[in-house]
Amino acid sequence: MEKLSTQPYKGTRDFYPEEMKLRNWFFGKIRETLELAAYEEYNGPMLESLELYAAKSGDELAREQTYNFTDRGGRDLAIRPEMTPSVARMVAAKIGELNYPLKWFSIPNMYRYERPQRGRLREFWQLNVDIFGCDTYEADLDVIQSAIAVLRAYGADETMFRVHINNRRFFNDVIAAICGTDAEGSKKVSKVVDRKNKIPRETYVKDMTELGLSEEQIDKIDALYTMNVKDATAFCPDSVGSQELLSLFDALAATGLDKYCMFDFGIIRGLDYYTGTVFEVFDEAPENNRAMFGGGRYDNLVGLFAKNAKISGVGYGMGDVTLENFLVTHKLVPDVLRSGKKVLVARFDDVAIEKYTAIVDQLRAAGIVTSLYTGIKKFGKQIDYAVKGNYSHVVIMGGSELEKGIAKIKNLETREEIEVAVSDIASSLA
Amino acid sequence: MEKLSTQPYKGTRDFYPEEMKLRNWFFGKIRETLELAAYEEYNGPMLESLELYAAKSGDELAREQTYNFTDRGGRDLAIRPEMTPSVARMVAAKIGELNYPLKWFSIPNMYRYERPQRGRLREFWQLNVDIFGCDTYEADLDVIQSAIAVLRAYGADETMFRVHINNRRFFNDVIAAICGTDAEGSKKVSKVVDRKNKIPRETYVKDMTELGLSEEQIDKIDALYTMNVKDATAFCPDSVGSQELLSLFDALAATGLDKYCMFDFGIIRGLDYYTGTVFEVFDEAPENNRAMFGGGRYDNLVGLFAKNAKISGVGYGMGDVTLENFLVTHKLVPDVLRSGKKVLVARFDDVAIEKYTAIVDQLRAAGIVTSLYTGIKKFGKQIDYAVKGNYSHVVIMGGSELEKGIAKIKNLETREEIEVAVSDIASSLA
Repeated sequence: MEKLSTQPYKGTRDFYPEEMKLRNWFFGKIRETLELAAYEEYNGPMLESLELYAAKSGDELAREQTYNFTDRGGRDLAIRPEMTPSVARMVAAKIGELNYPLKWFSIPNMYRYERPQRGRLREFWQLNVDIFGCDTYEADLDVIQSAIAVLRAYGADETMFRVHINNRRFFNDVIAAICGTDAEGSKKVSKVVDRKNKIPRETYVKDMTELGLSEEQIDKIDALYTMNVKDATAFCPDSVGSQELLSLFDALAATGLDKYCMFDFGIIRGLDYYTGTVFEVFDEAPENNRAMFGGGRYDNLVGLFAKNAKISGVGYGMGDVTLENFLVTHKLVPDVLRSGKKVLVARFDDVAIEKYTAIVDQLRAAGIVTSLYTGIKKFGKQIDYAVKGNYSHVVIMGGSELEKGIAKIKNLETREEIEVAVSDIASSLA
Repeated sequence: MEKLSTQPYKGTRDFYPEEMKLRNWFFGKIRETLELAAYEEYNGPMLESLELYAAKSGDELAREQTYNFTDRGGRDLAIRPEMTPSVARMVAAKIGELNYPLKWFSIPNMYRYERPQRGRLREFWQLNVDIFGCDTYEADLDVIQSAIAVLRAYGADETMFRVHINNRRFFNDVIAAICGTDAEGSKKVSKVVDRKNKIPRETYVKDMTELGLSEEQIDKIDALYTMNVKDATAFCPDSVGSQELLSLFDALAATGLDKYCMFDFGIIRGLDYYTGTVFEVFDEAPENNRAMFGGGRYDNLVGLFAKNAKISGVGYGMGDVTLENFLVTHKLVPDVLRSGKKVLVARFDDVAIEKYTAIVDQLRAAGIVTSLYTGIKKFGKQIDYAVKGNYSHVVIMGGSELEKGIAKIKNLETREEIEVAVSDIASSLA
C-alpha cells in the first residue's frame, strides 16, 4: 500500500511540545494581562453559516476567501475566517440580557483560503479584543491600553512598537474644513486620499485637482501627515472627531502611555467599516517597520441580526503569526523549555516499583513536575532521555541506595550530584 | 432585508464568558495535573487529508462521519473527527528525532457529523493522553494513573468513578485455555463473546454451542465476568496478558490506586484495534452508571505513514461534554464566576480621568483584577453593572473624597463600605 504523507495540510502547522509550550506561553500572557484588566474570554463554533460572511462581504468574496461547503441538510457552512460575525451573532442573541459595556476577548483558531506567505497562513489564531456598548472615547482608550499592556507583558518597550492613531470622524471633518466641500464632495476627496500611498504622486494630484482642489488645499492635506494632534485638530476644533482625539491623547499622556502612541493621519483602514477612532500598531524594527495589527470603532455591530437595536464596538484583532514574528525579531521569546524544575526518577530493576511511585507522589505533592521513567532501560539511556527531554534533575535510587535509605539527585545543568535521605528528596529540590 | 439567525449551527455551542470561564477551569485542571506528571501538550491542524481517516475506517465511513470537502487544488479534506491519525502523522514525521517514551496530551476541538444528542455534539473538545514508544505495563499504569489524577483533581473520589480494566492478550489466551481452541477457533468465539451483551441470552448460547462449546465451557466464560484478577488469570498463568494484568494490579495496589480500579472481563472495546491493556472509566452515580471514556494499548501507531517502523501506544480520549456531565452530576463544579477579587473603579465627572487610571494601575500592579467604569453614567447604573458583572468591590472617589485624599471601598457581598487613603487602596484589598 502507498504510504500516506506525514506533512500537515498546506498553510497549517503541527505544534510539537516545544512549539506548543511557546504558544501556551504566548496565550497565557495574553489571558493574564487581559483578565487583570477585567476583560472576559468567550468563544464560538469553528463552523458558521456562510451567510454570516456573505452578508458582510458579498456571497462571491465569502465563498472565495473561506473554506466552505454544504452539509447534508443543504446548509451552506464556512470555517470562520474572522471572529466579528460570530461575536455579533452572540451579542445579538442575548442583546437584552448582557451587561454593557462588555469587555470581551477571544483567541479562536480560524481559516482563510489564501496563498500561504510570510505572516499569513491558512490556519491561524487571532486575539480579538472588543468593548461593546460604550460609544465614548473611554472605551477607545481602554482597548488601546490593553494592546499596549499585552505587548509590554512580553517585555516590549517604546523602542519596539508604536500605536498610530487617527479618527474617522475627524478625517471627514478636516477634509470638509480644508476643502470647503459638502458631504458628497468630501466623500469623493476621501476616496482619493485613501489611495494616496498606493498611486503615483502625479495621479494623486491630478485626481485631487479634478475634484476642484487648489494647490494650497492639497499642500494642507499633505501637511496633516506630519502634524501632531493639536495642530491637526486646530483645522476643525468643533468636530466631534477632534474632541475625541484630544480627549484620547490627553488621557494617554495622563496615564504615561503617550510614549507608545502617535497621531498619524495616514491611518484610515478602509472607508466603509470604521466610524471613529482607528489605530494600527507598528513594529519599530527597521527591518520590519510595518503595521502588525490594528482596529478601531465601528457602529451597529448587530445590524445583521437585530432590527431597531444598535450596539457600537471598538476593538482590534491580532494574529498569532504576526505576534510571533514581532517577539522573535525583538528577542522577546524566553527559553520556556528550560524554565522550572522537571525531575526524572530513574528506574532500576532491583527495586520494587512502589518505592519509586512513592518518590513521585512526594515530589508531585510538592508541586514539582515529575516523571517516573516508563519501563526499564539501562541507566545511561535514562540519562539520555532526561537530557533530551529538558529534565533539570534525575533522582537515582538503586538497590544499594535503597539499603541505606538514601537517593542521589543529579543536577543535569551543573552535573553535580548530592545524596539525601529518601524522605527529604522533595524538600531538597524545593 | 431578512435578518440572520442568531443561533449557532446545530450541534455546536457558543461560549459566553460564564461558560468560557468554566471551560478554562476544566481545561486548566487537566493541564495542571498532566504537566505535573511531565506530560507535554501538542496540537495539530483542524483540517487534515480525508485519506487519513479513510485509511483507518474506509472511505465511505470516513465521508459519512466527517465534515469533508474538496479544496480548489482538488484535495479531499476533513475537519478532524479524532486526534489519533493526526498524532500518528506527527510522530511518523519525526520518528527518528523524538525522545521515547513520549508522554503527550492534547485538548483539540473536533467535529463529527452525527445527530446531536445527550453527551454527543457535533463540535466538541477531547482530551487525548498517550504514551508512545514503551510497550510494557508501566506505560499502561502511567496513563491510568493520569486519568485517575485528572478526576481526583476535580475532587472526585472512589465513590464517584471506577476504572474497569481488562487485557486483550489475556482475553484471547483465556478463551483459548477454556475452549481448547486454536487461534482461528478462538477468534470465532471472541466475536460471539464481544456481542454477548448486545444479543439475547438464547442467541448467545446457540452461537457458542454451534462453535462446539460445552455448557461447562460457557459457564466458565460467564464466571469470568464476576471474578477478580487473580482467579481469572489462573486459567492461563503463563499468558503475557495475565502477567501484564497482574503486574498492573500489583502496582495499582502498591500506589494506593486499587480502590479506584477493578478487573472487568466485559471490557473489550472492539476487536480490531486494541492489543493489550484496555480500560473504561465508569460513572458510579446510580442514575448515570455507564462508561464515560476509555482507552488502551494499540500497536503500530505509525503503520500508515512509515514502512519498517513500529511505535506502540497506550492512551485514552475523554470528551468535554461527558466530563462536564460527570462533574455536574457529582456537584464538583465550583462557583468559578464568583471566585477571587474583582474591582470596579467607579467614575464621577467632577474628577479627572487620570486620578482613576492611577488607582487602576495601583490595583493591577498588585495583581488585582480591576476595571475602570468605561464612560460616565449615574452612580446607581455603575453599581448595577458591578453587581451583574460579578465584581466583588467598587472603589468610589468623587470630588468630595478627592479633596480629602480618600476613597470609599464598597464590598458588594457584605454591603460594607470603608474609607481608606488613596495610596492604600490596593493594600487594603490585598
